[in-house]
Amino acid sequence: MTMGTIYGVGLGPGDPDLMSRKADSLIRAARHVAYFRKAGRAGHARRIVEGMLHADAREHPMEYPVTTEISFHDPAYKDMLSAFYAECTAHLRGLAAAGEDVVVLCEGDPFFYGSFMHLHERLKDDVPVEVVPGITGMSGAWTATGIPVTWGDDVLVVLTGTLPEDELTRRIAEADALVVMKLGRNLDKVRRALAATGRLEAAWLIEYATMPNQTVRRLTEAPSKPAPYFSMIVVHGQGRRP
Amino acid sequence: MTMGTIYGVGLGPGDPDLMSRKADSLIRAARHVAYFRKAGRAGHARRIVEGMLHADAREHPMEYPVTTEISFHDPAYKDMLSAFYAECTAHLRGLAAAGEDVVVLCEGDPFFYGSFMHLHERLKDDVPVEVVPGITGMSGAWTATGIPVTWGDDVLVVLTGTLPEDELTRRIAEADALVVMKLGRNLDKVRRALAATGRLEAAWLIEYATMPNQTVRRLTEAPSKPAPYFSMIVVHGQGRRP
Repeated sequence: MTMGTIYGVGLGPGDPDLMSRKADSLIRAARHVAYFRKAGRAGHARRIVEGMLHADAREHPMEYPVTTEISFHDPAYKDMLSAFYAECTAHLRGLAAAGEDVVVLCEGDPFFYGSFMHLHERLKDDVPVEVVPGITGMSGAWTATGIPVTWGDDVLVVLTGTLPEDELTRRIAEADALVVMKLGRNLDKVRRALAATGRLEAAWLIEYATMPNQTVRRLTEAPSKPAPYFSMIVVHGQGRRP
Repeated sequence: MTMGTIYGVGLGPGDPDLMSRKADSLIRAARHVAYFRKAGRAGHARRIVEGMLHADAREHPMEYPVTTEISFHDPAYKDMLSAFYAECTAHLRGLAAAGEDVVVLCEGDPFFYGSFMHLHERLKDDVPVEVVPGITGMSGAWTATGIPVTWGDDVLVVLTGTLPEDELTRRIAEADALVVMKLGRNLDKVRRALAATGRLEAAWLIEYATMPNQTVRRLTEAPSKPAPYFSMIVVHGQGRRP
């Protein structure tokens, strides 16, 4: 029997109309659809494809282990995640071994800070895997500001808010155009790093880019509270333009 | 009369199936389709939408002025481009003023190093403009390598090969994950900067990502000659992974 293929399919930033034609047709044809979600939630990726799944499609939610009682920096957290990814991988491998193709729904672009990468890493050597790129969340965010992000020779730097404050400050100082992801409880730290480099006034905060509840504003106008999972900071480049 | 809207529509990296559903439907419905091209060429953006245009669509090719006899660094080059963009803008503004919508075809993502930005800058204050993001060429390139580009807290740096060699070297040294665009005649300079920072062996050269003539190889295996317009270097991040 021929092995099935595991497709990591980028859904784009959130608006279903921003998924690619290829993603659209793979998802509509799929008989097995897998996706990550928090336990007890519908799942954001699943919500993007609402109304698109085939009547015969079997769904395979992969529920993150509950992690509220354990710190992100605790080695036990890493072990727990690692065991979770191993379990997901075993399930997908079983489907592929039975000749079934599986579409794994991926927010944004699968190979850009994506959860699918952890499955890909464990599957790629013994299961056929194909990846379909998607529009990144950051493209959705800078488009939402209505201002181009990089001109001419601008250097774009993409950072995660999880970095230490001194490193954020040093790296922001070097950026022409800047994107900061993974804000959450790091928002005030990022704000301080932007202020220290004179970039605070130029920073935009975009929440839920391309989704119905999208908000776009200057970071200086945003309240001092944790940012939602779907939020990003953008500072636009000012490079050469004829 | 209501003014028409100018749509800057991202086509993605080259494979027509990687354009978004939204791009697909806007392009198929458009009665006016504009695109940049070199004089005497079909135009790459136009080729991506081959077979999709409405029977009644009027095409508006915008042909770059011939620039072979004038240096990129000559101020006359900037003046010539500026006059060209002003002329394109006047044409599009005329269509919009007559109540016509226009779809401008944009390779990749319109707001990421895109030519459309020069039109947008000149139109945005007096014509309705809407931008549809696209999958970037760099997403197409890193997906083609089959290896994820950013993990955990990796910092992604996007550079253009047009930067001076010392600046390239300094900035490459700071990158976890790296993309170098605008290679062309800068390829050997970029290669030296990668070698100086110990990153040469880890670098991939991707040409024509997602197109039928796509090539993917280690940069060390590529010949020492100018790279085509559709080429990019990717160095993958090695960050935290459970």
